[in-house]
Amino acid sequence: MSEKVAVFRKEHFNAAHRLFCPDWSDAENKRVFGACSNPNYHGHNYELVVQVIGYPDPITGFVINTKDLSTIVQEEVISKFDHKNLNLDTDAFKNLNPSAENIAIVIYNLLRPRITESLELKIRLYETERNYVDYPA
Amino acid sequence: MSEKVAVFRKEHFNAAHRLFCPDWSDAENKRVFGACSNPNYHGHNYELVVQVIGYPDPITGFVINTKDLSTIVQEEVISKFDHKNLNLDTDAFKNLNPSAENIAIVIYNLLRPRITESLELKIRLYETERNYVDYPA
Amino acid sequence: MSEKVAVFRKEHFNAAHRLFCPDWSDAENKRVFGACSNPNYHGHNYELVVQVIGYPDPITGFVINTKDLSTIVQEEVISKFDHKNLNLDTDAFKNLNPSAENIAIVIYNLLRPRITESLELKIRLYETERNYVDYPA
Amino acid sequence: MSEKVAVFRKEHFNAAHRLFCPDWSDAENKRVFGACSNPNYHGHNYELVVQVIGYPDPITGFVINTKDLSTIVQEEVISKFDHKNLNLDTDAFKNLNPSAENIAIVIYNLLRPRITESLELKIRLYETERNYVDYPA
Amino acid sequence: MSEKVAVFRKEHFNAAHRLFCPDWSDAENKRVFGACSNPNYHGHNYELVVQVIGYPDPITGFVINTKDLSTIVQEEVISKFDHKNLNLDTDAFKNLNPSAENIAIVIYNLLRPRITESLELKIRLYETERNYVDYPA
Amino acid sequence: MSEKVAVFRKEHFNAAHRLFCPDWSDAENKRVFGACSNPNYHGHNYELVVQVIGYPDPITGFVINTKDLSTIVQEEVISKFDHKNLNLDTDAFKNLNPSAENIAIVIYNLLRPRITESLELKIRLYETERNYVDYPA
Repeated sequence: MSEKVAVFRKEHFNAAHRLFCPDWSDAENKRVFGACSNPNYHGHNYELVVQVIGYPDPITGFVINTKDLSTIVQEEVISKFDHKNLNLDTDAFKNLNPSAENIAIVIYNLLRPRITESLELKIRLYETERNYVDYPA
Repeated sequence: MSEKVAVFRKEHFNAAHRLFCPDWSDAENKRVFGACSNPNYHGHNYELVVQVIGYPDPITGFVINTKDLSTIVQEEVISKFDHKNLNLDTDAFKNLNPSAENIAIVIYNLLRPRITESLELKIRLYETERNYVDYPA
Repeated sequence: MSEKVAVFRKEHFNAAHRLFCPDWSDAENKRVFGACSNPNYHGHNYELVVQVIGYPDPITGFVINTKDLSTIVQEEVISKFDHKNLNLDTDAFKNLNPSAENIAIVIYNLLRPRITESLELKIRLYETERNYVDYPA
Repeated sequence: MSEKVAVFRKEHFNAAHRLFCPDWSDAENKRVFGACSNPNYHGHNYELVVQVIGYPDPITGFVINTKDLSTIVQEEVISKFDHKNLNLDTDAFKNLNPSAENIAIVIYNLLRPRITESLELKIRLYETERNYVDYPA
Repeated sequence: MSEKVAVFRKEHFNAAHRLFCPDWSDAENKRVFGACSNPNYHGHNYELVVQVIGYPDPITGFVINTKDLSTIVQEEVISKFDHKNLNLDTDAFKNLNPSAENIAIVIYNLLRPRITESLELKIRLYETERNYVDYPA
Repeated sequence: MSEKVAVFRKEHFNAAHRLFCPDWSDAENKRVFGACSNPNYHGHNYELVVQVIGYPDPITGFVINTKDLSTIVQEEVISKFDHKNLNLDTDAFKNLNPSAENIAIVIYNLLRPRITESLELKIRLYETERNYVDYPA
């Protein structure tokens, strides 16, 4: 019998965000987060890659139907984050710094209940072409 | 003698923006600009391609030294727009909708005085991989 | 006053096709079209870039609303070509070789009546990352 | 002593395919596979990444000579799949749905006997830029 | 009747080069060319896009057969420049600075005699993803 | 508690190199390394992806500050390899073949002492878009 296959589906959203710690001085925020702490926000074209791992169905040849996967990502992530201010417009980042690491963890937690338990789930999030994260590593 | 050569230099900046018309109702802004009019802003990884056209220098082989061109773009554009909110943090878009078209025209006007008059200048601005503009066309 | 701006919108479709001339022998088709004349078809992920040129509206800052442009491309091109066999499933290529050149011309002719006459229209079509065409040149 | 290194070689092929289950009604095929079940086929530019894992040779510095790897992939995969209809022109998919998952498994099984046993082998297959699979996961 | 179509074919080569002026001091070369004047050379993955403009043939639908175009580029450019030191291993740059501008002009002159006179020819050369040139502009 | 997150930072450098074994004849070098053994060197645009794995800090949301990571890569790798001849201008490859595998191992060893011990480190190095390596695998 074959081993498991990983299926990847890439989606994207555009959002504003700001990195800062409310308990710190402006100078301290500037020192740690640099331009990312600009009070009026900046933004990114986020590219999101959702990975689902399991055995292909013997009839369809699918680990998961990517049309269904795309719908789930649309409902749980894109509809909430696209063209939004992550700090102001979402519940998830009201008290959580919207670093790429934290956004990936939040997205994982949004998607996990919607994916059959027998399937493994991993998230890759590109903040820019040169900065990205995987969760879980 | 050879014909003119075009030299391209690609730079990038990340910024937040919002499209809306202050004279219109929220409903009208929503109808025209859709999610782009979200009051709390969203953002993009802008990719900027600056094109300079002229004859190569017979000794250096350069139309323009791309190190110098990169410095000029850094001083006139990136330092002003990167990690900024285009609507709130820049003079250029205080009363001008920061559409990709208008951002490209503003960038052209910032760079034009810094490029020798005998050289032609063109701007390409990618708002996303799928939406971009050229100025002048 | 500003000069014209070009706005680009990228869309994609996946299709099967075959290049061949019905008046030619198999050997002649093979000699000219190579593997592209395989009788059972092959296929591509076509990337389509639609360029519209004009003056930005002074209020919206748009040459054309890319949401509207995307809808037009969806209706006139994607709905007809995506996941289709260009030779068998479309009217346009019943008697016309679906070369990248001809597909670009057909797409131009499908879109031209839907774009305001004062706006210029150009098509770029990627058959692969390494083979693509512009129409008009 | 150093740990193992993974070497990646990217190749591509263009092919037509169709997803469907012969035991199902047209409606059922349409419901599960959507436009992918179009009877006249559609196609893709497949990008294939072959990964080989092992220790670099102390003299050449190579885990595997990528020229040799490229030749093997050419002989076992590209020559069989490029510019072909996967459903009609290949033995592998006569009775197997050519989903990205199954194509990756078939490619793995074609290449495995040609790669020295001490080297680990993995396949990544891009059906489109936004849909791809890894085997084994 | 249709207008002209532009056909693009992308090829690549890897080469070493060095920018410097033999009549200048080391300090002057350093000031103008920076790290590009390093005496022991550096190198690039050059991406070459050859553009040919003309009317599609009514039967084949081709402006030029890209298989033939690819062969011509292979013979005239890739075989001479790929895995070479442009300054030391090629006739063209014995007394000419191998700037991207000059490499593009040299490639144009190598290809022009091989392309039917009625077809227009243009060259784009990427030295890096962020630095590239067009000739003629 | 969350699992570990991987953070990726992409940098690049341009360098010349040559693959050959000084104990072998020219013919043997040519047979094994092909055009890569050209005596006058050739070159590449190397893309370097540095991966750091660990738990995000509860306040900053960072596994590692990518600004700091970028500075470390600049100091330890880019300043030594960019616009250099790897065989002639670096200590690391005086007696070591600069294959992609070996360059990745050398970069790992340069960076490892600069990254906190509790964080895991991995290197991906692209020699071209189609040839790349991971270390450790």
